[in-house]
Amino acid sequence: MKRSVFIAGTGNVGKNLLDLIYSGDMPFTVAGIENRRGQITGKHLEKTDVLNFLNSPSEHPEKKSFDELDFDIYVDLRTASKDGKMELETYRKAFEKGADVVSANKSGLANHWQEIMAKKNETGKRMLFEATVAGGLPIFSLLNSSLQGFQCNYFQGIVNLTANYVMRMITEGISFDEACKMAIKEGIGETDMSDDLTGLDSARKAIIISNAIFGQNLRLKDLKYEGIRNSPDKNMRLLVTAGIDEKFTVTSRIESLETGDSFLRLDPMAMSMRMGFVGRSTVTVSEDTDGPVETAGAVLNDIITLA
Amino acid sequence: MKRSVFIAGTGNVGKNLLDLIYSGDMPFTVAGIENRRGQITGKHLEKTDVLNFLNSPSEHPEKKSFDELDFDIYVDLRTASKDGKMELETYRKAFEKGADVVSANKSGLANHWQEIMAKKNETGKRMLFEATVAGGLPIFSLLNSSLQGFQCNYFQGIVNLTANYVMRMITEGISFDEACKMAIKEGIGETDMSDDLTGLDSARKAIIISNAIFGQNLRLKDLKYEGIRNSPDKNMRLLVTAGIDEKFTVTSRIESLETGDSFLRLDPMAMSMRMGFVGRSTVTVSEDTDGPVETAGAVLNDIITLA
Repeated sequence: MKRSVFIAGTGNVGKNLLDLIYSGDMPFTVAGIENRRGQITGKHLEKTDVLNFLNSPSEHPEKKSFDELDFDIYVDLRTASKDGKMELETYRKAFEKGADVVSANKSGLANHWQEIMAKKNETGKRMLFEATVAGGLPIFSLLNSSLQGFQCNYFQGIVNLTANYVMRMITEGISFDEACKMAIKEGIGETDMSDDLTGLDSARKAIIISNAIFGQNLRLKDLKYEGIRNSPDKNMRLLVTAGIDEKFTVTSRIESLETGDSFLRLDPMAMSMRMGFVGRSTVTVSEDTDGPVETAGAVLNDIITLA
Repeated sequence: MKRSVFIAGTGNVGKNLLDLIYSGDMPFTVAGIENRRGQITGKHLEKTDVLNFLNSPSEHPEKKSFDELDFDIYVDLRTASKDGKMELETYRKAFEKGADVVSANKSGLANHWQEIMAKKNETGKRMLFEATVAGGLPIFSLLNSSLQGFQCNYFQGIVNLTANYVMRMITEGISFDEACKMAIKEGIGETDMSDDLTGLDSARKAIIISNAIFGQNLRLKDLKYEGIRNSPDKNMRLLVTAGIDEKFTVTSRIESLETGDSFLRLDPMAMSMRMGFVGRSTVTVSEDTDGPVETAGAVLNDIITLA
């Protein structure tokens, strides 16, 4: 029997995920969708059920409690909370129900990694979170499925598109306000870009990378991070850098790259990450643009892997 | 119980694979190794057994026939035959024995894809061959494990290092003979580079990509391919390009890239591949250098996946 999926959150990523799911033959069923306005559940929701729900949520006023819901995989696409407590509680309850978790929501993992992993291990469940870092560009699945047998000892990446896009536009003579408007118009910035511009989003990713790739147990509050500068120069990027040399270090800050660095030759909407290893050469992955469909694809990849 | 592996071929890739295997804790055992000079078998070969064999093969004169060998995964690191018949026969016998196959050897797959896959499917066994294309740079595992849910409709890559290295050196004023010597010294060229320079190696990869990614059933003889030019210009690279537009097309030839193409900015020892998809942006993977350890890592990744 196919495993069933419950999707929490129907923003840009959620809508794109549902589009991808209902445009192909999936190895799982959708057993429930929830957003701030309501909930729809059923053994196997059809595309028309989902479209009806998205277009008229008021027709589905009854809402089952979390305990009453029936699913095998919980998919967290909700807006991140500041402290990650809501996320922690949800994942705990999901694991205890016997479900696996897929998350594109960074806040729980960045603030309560140790507690989440403890509950996951205690219950013997699985959790995947490819979409929390660098949207639709693979990193965790790449390391776990394509580079098994090598230990990653270095990471550097452009993992926040909005901040770097705005900084680059400023270096081209565009005002800060205008650059923010352009980011929204391009579909890479949210209406509220403060998490991106203050560096919070990038810092959360730095914590998740530190914990997932380098075996750390860090929390967001352990990291002093930077946001964008109002008068950047052309070689500056907001970068996450992490690595083990003698000891582990991680930063999420503005760095001035050397002329010739491949990150400086990327398009303004491109993302890129490089990974160093013990015993083999550095691997770089890049994508031309990143947006909701790419991020939704990373979520879908995680769901298929667990299904 | 751990699955057991039989390794055929102990050249540069084989030696690096054995180094990787015996430097970590593997989820499989090595039950046999064979090269042109002899064979060693056992339930669980230790590192010292392997080193003894590699250093003094004449002490292991008895050779079991293929039917007498006991293994779960056959690893083909042998030198490619011209027509791929030897490889086809070995894989058929391995599948019939109930074993899976991992191959870094291109010739069987490039010449007899359909026959190999028919036997694999008939016996219900698995075959992985990450290392046949672009050495240690992941492509098949990347598509199958990190980009599930998207259909790849375009591929372009620098998949042969030697040919492109030699051409680049020529454009820098170095003679053909000297460039070949430099390739050997850098560890990227074999003593006999004819398969690389005539374009045969790249063409074999083009066929495997066509069949594995784009569902074709091509054979090497279906493809007219090019080797390197004696007077290339700086923008020329030996590239494999494949894609589905209205119909499927594949080429393995010298192409003149547009100024600004990211392939032109790669180091002389770097490999890179870009993949286009229906419904999402292009993904590019690159590595700084490729050599026997990277290729051995791709083989190891396949073995771990099957184990």
